[in-house]
Amino acid sequence: MTPSNSSAPNRSPALAETMAPGFSITDRDATRQARELEVGQRPGTLNIRDGALKPRLFVMSYNDAACLEAEFTDRYNELLPYLQEHADFKHWIDVRGYGDLPLMEQLMQDFGLHPLQMEDVLNDYQRAKIEVFDEGRLFMVSRMTEFTRNLEIDDDQLSLFTGPNYVLSFQDDYDDCLDSLRVRIRSNFSTLRRHPILYLAYAITDVVLDHYYPTMAAIGDYIEELEEAIFADKRPRRLLNRILRIKKDVVRFRRLVYPERDKIAEILRLPEEIVPETLKIFYRDAYDHAIQALDLAESYRDNISSLTDLYLSDQSNRMNEVMKVLTIISTIFIPLSFVVGLYGMNFQRDDGHGHFLPLNMPELYSPWGYPMVVFIMSMVVATQLYYFYRKGWLTNR
Amino acid sequence: MTPSNSSAPNRSPALAETMAPGFSITDRDATRQARELEVGQRPGTLNIRDGALKPRLFVMSYNDAACLEAEFTDRYNELLPYLQEHADFKHWIDVRGYGDLPLMEQLMQDFGLHPLQMEDVLNDYQRAKIEVFDEGRLFMVSRMTEFTRNLEIDDDQLSLFTGPNYVLSFQDDYDDCLDSLRVRIRSNFSTLRRHPILYLAYAITDVVLDHYYPTMAAIGDYIEELEEAIFADKRPRRLLNRILRIKKDVVRFRRLVYPERDKIAEILRLPEEIVPETLKIFYRDAYDHAIQALDLAESYRDNISSLTDLYLSDQSNRMNEVMKVLTIISTIFIPLSFVVGLYGMNFQRDDGHGHFLPLNMPELYSPWGYPMVVFIMSMVVATQLYYFYRKGWLTNR
Amino acid sequence: MTPSNSSAPNRSPALAETMAPGFSITDRDATRQARELEVGQRPGTLNIRDGALKPRLFVMSYNDAACLEAEFTDRYNELLPYLQEHADFKHWIDVRGYGDLPLMEQLMQDFGLHPLQMEDVLNDYQRAKIEVFDEGRLFMVSRMTEFTRNLEIDDDQLSLFTGPNYVLSFQDDYDDCLDSLRVRIRSNFSTLRRHPILYLAYAITDVVLDHYYPTMAAIGDYIEELEEAIFADKRPRRLLNRILRIKKDVVRFRRLVYPERDKIAEILRLPEEIVPETLKIFYRDAYDHAIQALDLAESYRDNISSLTDLYLSDQSNRMNEVMKVLTIISTIFIPLSFVVGLYGMNFQRDDGHGHFLPLNMPELYSPWGYPMVVFIMSMVVATQLYYFYRKGWLTNR
Amino acid sequence: MTPSNSSAPNRSPALAETMAPGFSITDRDATRQARELEVGQRPGTLNIRDGALKPRLFVMSYNDAACLEAEFTDRYNELLPYLQEHADFKHWIDVRGYGDLPLMEQLMQDFGLHPLQMEDVLNDYQRAKIEVFDEGRLFMVSRMTEFTRNLEIDDDQLSLFTGPNYVLSFQDDYDDCLDSLRVRIRSNFSTLRRHPILYLAYAITDVVLDHYYPTMAAIGDYIEELEEAIFADKRPRRLLNRILRIKKDVVRFRRLVYPERDKIAEILRLPEEIVPETLKIFYRDAYDHAIQALDLAESYRDNISSLTDLYLSDQSNRMNEVMKVLTIISTIFIPLSFVVGLYGMNFQRDDGHGHFLPLNMPELYSPWGYPMVVFIMSMVVATQLYYFYRKGWLTNR
Amino acid sequence: MTPSNSSAPNRSPALAETMAPGFSITDRDATRQARELEVGQRPGTLNIRDGALKPRLFVMSYNDAACLEAEFTDRYNELLPYLQEHADFKHWIDVRGYGDLPLMEQLMQDFGLHPLQMEDVLNDYQRAKIEVFDEGRLFMVSRMTEFTRNLEIDDDQLSLFTGPNYVLSFQDDYDDCLDSLRVRIRSNFSTLRRHPILYLAYAITDVVLDHYYPTMAAIGDYIEELEEAIFADKRPRRLLNRILRIKKDVVRFRRLVYPERDKIAEILRLPEEIVPETLKIFYRDAYDHAIQALDLAESYRDNISSLTDLYLSDQSNRMNEVMKVLTIISTIFIPLSFVVGLYGMNFQRDDGHGHFLPLNMPELYSPWGYPMVVFIMSMVVATQLYYFYRKGWLTNR
Repeated sequence: MTPSNSSAPNRSPALAETMAPGFSITDRDATRQARELEVGQRPGTLNIRDGALKPRLFVMSYNDAACLEAEFTDRYNELLPYLQEHADFKHWIDVRGYGDLPLMEQLMQDFGLHPLQMEDVLNDYQRAKIEVFDEGRLFMVSRMTEFTRNLEIDDDQLSLFTGPNYVLSFQDDYDDCLDSLRVRIRSNFSTLRRHPILYLAYAITDVVLDHYYPTMAAIGDYIEELEEAIFADKRPRRLLNRILRIKKDVVRFRRLVYPERDKIAEILRLPEEIVPETLKIFYRDAYDHAIQALDLAESYRDNISSLTDLYLSDQSNRMNEVMKVLTIISTIFIPLSFVVGLYGMNFQRDDGHGHFLPLNMPELYSPWGYPMVVFIMSMVVATQLYYFYRKGWLTNR
Repeated sequence: MTPSNSSAPNRSPALAETMAPGFSITDRDATRQARELEVGQRPGTLNIRDGALKPRLFVMSYNDAACLEAEFTDRYNELLPYLQEHADFKHWIDVRGYGDLPLMEQLMQDFGLHPLQMEDVLNDYQRAKIEVFDEGRLFMVSRMTEFTRNLEIDDDQLSLFTGPNYVLSFQDDYDDCLDSLRVRIRSNFSTLRRHPILYLAYAITDVVLDHYYPTMAAIGDYIEELEEAIFADKRPRRLLNRILRIKKDVVRFRRLVYPERDKIAEILRLPEEIVPETLKIFYRDAYDHAIQALDLAESYRDNISSLTDLYLSDQSNRMNEVMKVLTIISTIFIPLSFVVGLYGMNFQRDDGHGHFLPLNMPELYSPWGYPMVVFIMSMVVATQLYYFYRKGWLTNR
Repeated sequence: MTPSNSSAPNRSPALAETMAPGFSITDRDATRQARELEVGQRPGTLNIRDGALKPRLFVMSYNDAACLEAEFTDRYNELLPYLQEHADFKHWIDVRGYGDLPLMEQLMQDFGLHPLQMEDVLNDYQRAKIEVFDEGRLFMVSRMTEFTRNLEIDDDQLSLFTGPNYVLSFQDDYDDCLDSLRVRIRSNFSTLRRHPILYLAYAITDVVLDHYYPTMAAIGDYIEELEEAIFADKRPRRLLNRILRIKKDVVRFRRLVYPERDKIAEILRLPEEIVPETLKIFYRDAYDHAIQALDLAESYRDNISSLTDLYLSDQSNRMNEVMKVLTIISTIFIPLSFVVGLYGMNFQRDDGHGHFLPLNMPELYSPWGYPMVVFIMSMVVATQLYYFYRKGWLTNR
Repeated sequence: MTPSNSSAPNRSPALAETMAPGFSITDRDATRQARELEVGQRPGTLNIRDGALKPRLFVMSYNDAACLEAEFTDRYNELLPYLQEHADFKHWIDVRGYGDLPLMEQLMQDFGLHPLQMEDVLNDYQRAKIEVFDEGRLFMVSRMTEFTRNLEIDDDQLSLFTGPNYVLSFQDDYDDCLDSLRVRIRSNFSTLRRHPILYLAYAITDVVLDHYYPTMAAIGDYIEELEEAIFADKRPRRLLNRILRIKKDVVRFRRLVYPERDKIAEILRLPEEIVPETLKIFYRDAYDHAIQALDLAESYRDNISSLTDLYLSDQSNRMNEVMKVLTIISTIFIPLSFVVGLYGMNFQRDDGHGHFLPLNMPELYSPWGYPMVVFIMSMVVATQLYYFYRKGWLTNR
Repeated sequence: MTPSNSSAPNRSPALAETMAPGFSITDRDATRQARELEVGQRPGTLNIRDGALKPRLFVMSYNDAACLEAEFTDRYNELLPYLQEHADFKHWIDVRGYGDLPLMEQLMQDFGLHPLQMEDVLNDYQRAKIEVFDEGRLFMVSRMTEFTRNLEIDDDQLSLFTGPNYVLSFQDDYDDCLDSLRVRIRSNFSTLRRHPILYLAYAITDVVLDHYYPTMAAIGDYIEELEEAIFADKRPRRLLNRILRIKKDVVRFRRLVYPERDKIAEILRLPEEIVPETLKIFYRDAYDHAIQALDLAESYRDNISSLTDLYLSDQSNRMNEVMKVLTIISTIFIPLSFVVGLYGMNFQRDDGHGHFLPLNMPELYSPWGYPMVVFIMSMVVATQLYYFYRKGWLTNR
């Protein structure tokens, strides 16, 4: 995710571009996830995935009066002194990338995290969840979604720990969807800077939730494109595959948002001393947003099911049309072919021994024989055409 | 919504008119909603949607004895003094249109609303809900539905705050479905004027609920029209599209009414000091109405599913009929064509060297050859027709 | 409902009779209901439906020793004195027909009913429900079902209020299904007369519940008839419509019985002082009955789904059979037609200039040409028939 | 059920035998049940079904030391004295057959049963249930199943009342599935004889539950036979009917077992003083068994749904195959027929007036005309065969 | 399961190999299970299944300082003394194989197990479950899964009892999936050796859970192979059977994992004194894993349903294509055949008596007759080809 074009790639790619290699209607991420979780190790053992980025460490420190920003990449040892020095600030310690096991273990120790929690951070296939630990600290997992050009939902994990005056967040990518929040923190007029530190945790969750809408909008756009393609009788190749693929995305999205909703509901049930009522008002708003996102996903599911019905009925209609053409042509010409075949028979007027055989096809020797046959055949055709017209087979339906 | 014809447009439009442009079987409102919710801003930031109407401000003031009506559009500053002056009245402050941000912020401040609540009012895609704030004040959201000529369910949001002696309501349109209620307030004999102010909030909710029935009736009428069209064997174009479209409406309606029911259930669970038992009797009645509306929606869903089954089976029957015509014509004439082809063969009686070939099609030289062949062919046809008759292929089924 | 033939019309009408006009697979009652509920009036306003019958008023009074019956139609003013005079009796005040608004209002006042309750009585589309009012009085709504000749479920509402020594019941028809109960009350040996007045309310509910079984039995009979019709390969016209229609009935029935079950479950949860344990034993029995009725309805739903599967597969089988006939005839005769066409070609032995052309169809000049061709064609037919026999296309499946 | 072959008839009958008359895919027992429940009588009225067997009365008495068995058929008056005499024994009073109303009423009175309970015993369509009455006595209903030769699930009701030192059981048949239990009681080494009387009630329930497994195994065998029949491409007649029928059985079985599970769960929730913990351990085991039986039923349901999918796809494949044969034959021979027809045209070289017409089918007069045509036709056939081979139409799929 | 290749056989076998005999789309294990559970015996009777392996008995003893391993197969009498001698160790007593009834009864007695529990161990079709007994001891059942070469899920039961300083585990196979755990126990640096004995029970459960992922990954790989096969238009034989079979596996897997999740949830609800909070943190992690496995299974179910849709639509497309070929060939050649048949008619110019019949097919005598007919036929073909091209029947879709 590059912050500069964070919303642009969410736009639905043109129908024509979407058959890229790797296109799949099944949820291959699930299998990849199962494969990576295979390793049966001691619970709480930290494992760095191959290809994990080298961690970068940013700190935003703010209070009512000021906002400082610093990067501690490659100089972690200066972080704790810095935090002690700025004890009157609230800090957002923002770790991006996991590719340094000793650093991760150091962070775990210095910020009092449980090995199992750190394992959840590094194995980044966690569902959204909330855990209370150390009598009042919160550990939250959120999933940030993005709808890629390849019609896939790409989701990254954001893990977040609260402390007395800091929020410690982890993600595996350098870019994220939180830049709008950073801008708000920098602003001297932002009310955010006056709220307690827990509000920062809320604000991060809320921005993540807000980013579900562009994903949904992109999916919705694509569904509309598919619908228009069907209505315009212009069927792109492998239309059903496309429908099934977008269905997969919606199903995946629902599976991402359900735990998010449950997470917020659980926060709302936390006692007053952990999450005060003044903050819960905001979480109640976030809860409404999560419900709305689920509502949208349900809507989309119904839409896709309607599209599938339409597709299958359309497929059946096409078959019907093919059959009608065959039937009309066949039923018109097969009887005619019989008639002309009839008068192609070689019954002889003469048995070869000079006996005249008057019953053998006297029509062939009649002066009006041919015109009469042509007239009869015309009548047959006219009758059939009338019958088909009455049946409505000649018109479009 | 114009009050004058508030029920008329709810009548189902004729089948013929319904293929207007913009006709869709997918829920495009959902996508539009997702798009508008995209903006990731500070929670509680007020945003006026483009094209929002300039707010008009009406106040109805009543007590047992009298009923006053006034409009404060463009002179908001006179509103608070007016309310203080008429402290012995109950007031319905009725704001229509959101297109004036400073006024909205002023209202928020003057009537003690939370910014998140005001955001919910302005972002008008909220599900029906109830919130208690300020120890006893209620914030309710309802959705008013209308079934448009274009077979869409059009729904507007009605937001409502209660106060010590007033109800403050917001909606984005100048016209609404509440005129019948206004008439009742004006009437000197109305019991409504003797009830406490919370009853007004109830009465508004109840009128909104009552307006679900015409929507449902219009949907039901359309379903019946579709059923009759199928039974009459007159299939309008794109019949399945129509069925899927009305299905979309029913699904959308259910999604609107479910939160409404939950809202009322939540009101019924509120403590006696917020909503007294004498009022709950009325809400219990409203609850029954919401359940009935949901029951209707479930009924419609089953009906639409039956229509779809019928449509698909009918499609299959038509195919069957086409195939039967083809089969009957083919099986009758193909063997006949063979017979006449047989006697069209040119086997010679004479090998060209004067040898007589008695086995080469002696039938052609028989005096009864042709009549016999015609007789045999007639027998074949008769046998086949009898077979088809026994199979029931000649009758309609 | 005429008591004399109350069970007879429940028998399933013959398949042949059932295509009466008005036959519908969609739930038109639902739409009618939505239409009638359209009127948006003050809650608690009493409305008499057009065509409501003139009320008739019967009272059955009984105690351990005696049972009196009286009709107070057109002399309502004598009712209250009569009740006071017979204070040592228990009374069943039985109002049939709603067509007299002043009388309804009078009853409401005299028996202490809430306007909203009276509205529920008159608007007779209420689901089964139970309400406790006035600290211990019960208001119950039941739905009486009947399976009509037209394969519709006809349901009437029975509303019932308990009082200190009376039960007040309302229904909109003169005839009902409660005559068996009246006979029991009249009998001097009936234990019913010794039970407290609440038992009468239970007994009425129980008789209504018992009348669900004939409805179910009639539906079951019809389903069996449909099954037999499919198995006998005699398909009545519009068979799918019939299946869908009976499905509608089952769905409607379930929707009627579910609230009935919930009502009884709610009664079982009422405190001892309102419904004593000695009565709850009976309600527990009624609860078992309601569950059994729902079980039956579920059974029927599964049966109908099986019938639909069978119908669709049968439809597909018929298509298959049609195609097989076409294929067998075509594949046998099309090659033969080619052969006979082959020897119908006019290739000449002589180029018109006296040159002998020995390669031009010498078969035609061979002495065994024709018999050989006939033999070859017989072989082709035999081979094909053997192939079809092996494929099993010649046998029925 | 004859004890001697109680497990044998549970084996799945051969596919060939199963189309006995009375074969049905709908649940006719349900309708029969609805019919018998029609009678709307006073609750608690005892009715003996027509054809009920004359009751036989057996008593097994046991304590740690001894086990007595006696039959009291036709001498009920000796039963109570016998019980008093053997007060130090535990008794299993086993009533088989209901066809004697006075005896039933006598039993009801002597053993303190409620009329509604006795009605449940005699109307033997009760779901499994448990009721506590008389402060600690239990009334349990179980359903014993058997899978008949006719592929039906036959279920009988076993009703059971506990008393201080006896269990009173009712069933409508002389034979049952409890003989294995009787053998255990007779054995001097059985721990059962040392357990309190409630254990006997448990043991009866447990044996009934255990008999669900042979029923399931028989259904499973039949499903496997159906699967093998489909895989072997040998489709017995009316295969779908068979599938739907076995589906009906599975659905019916689930409906029998669900209440059984709920019954046991309810027993587990009973207070310690009614069902002591030492007994609950056994019921917990029975609960696991009921869950396992439900699991099996769910498995079977999935299996049947897979079979149906396979059947329908197979049906479609057969159609496809038929069409392919038709298409191959037609597309090969129809063009050939055109060619040979072409050279069967009678265009003359001579206009009848001596003018030579050189353009009229000179091919017919060419020395290589016929061989060339035969060659061309061979090429056409070869090309088409190659095309079909490439398409894979000539191979099996 | 051989430990050496415990993960290798989990890889999906090649599509080509998978039609081994015994291939089934129905859950035959279920039927086998039902058959084995048929025996209706005294609850708590121990039965050894035929073919059960001779038990082998291993003990791993560890404390912070040391780890001992010993095998007690064939010398059970030395086990208890050994345990007493090493009372300062924690022991994992690992029984593999059940084929020795006296030994099993001895174990039951020596370790204080309930006969019903022992029955659950030996009858190894138990769902995953947890029971607390003897005031704090735990009895857990887990199911270990493996995905076999034959595309079946093979599951073995692991039963586990906790004691004051030991865990007693039972399984019916010599090899299992726990070797990674044994390696961890042997390691002197393992934290496991410092945890209390209950942690060992957790660790075993956790390893079993971890082994669900390779099973899922193998299923996912196979689903992807199926998808690729469909997309590549190379359909292996019996493709639907394969899809249905893998569906069976997924369904079976879900049924295995659901009780596992419930088991862990129940452990989380156990009171602090049985399972301390420090251990529950780990179980919470295991709970997340179980939920993830279920999520994966749901994903796979959706995928398989998409594959089935695609398969069926593809089947329909193939039919369509066949029909299109037939229709194109037929509609082109049938009219042509009529034309050539027309000019094959033998209408004579001469009635045999010397009268000239000028109307009888003068075309045949025209100098341009044949070229004209050929031209007309070419036009017909060209027109039809253009029509089919416009319809898109000549292109691939």
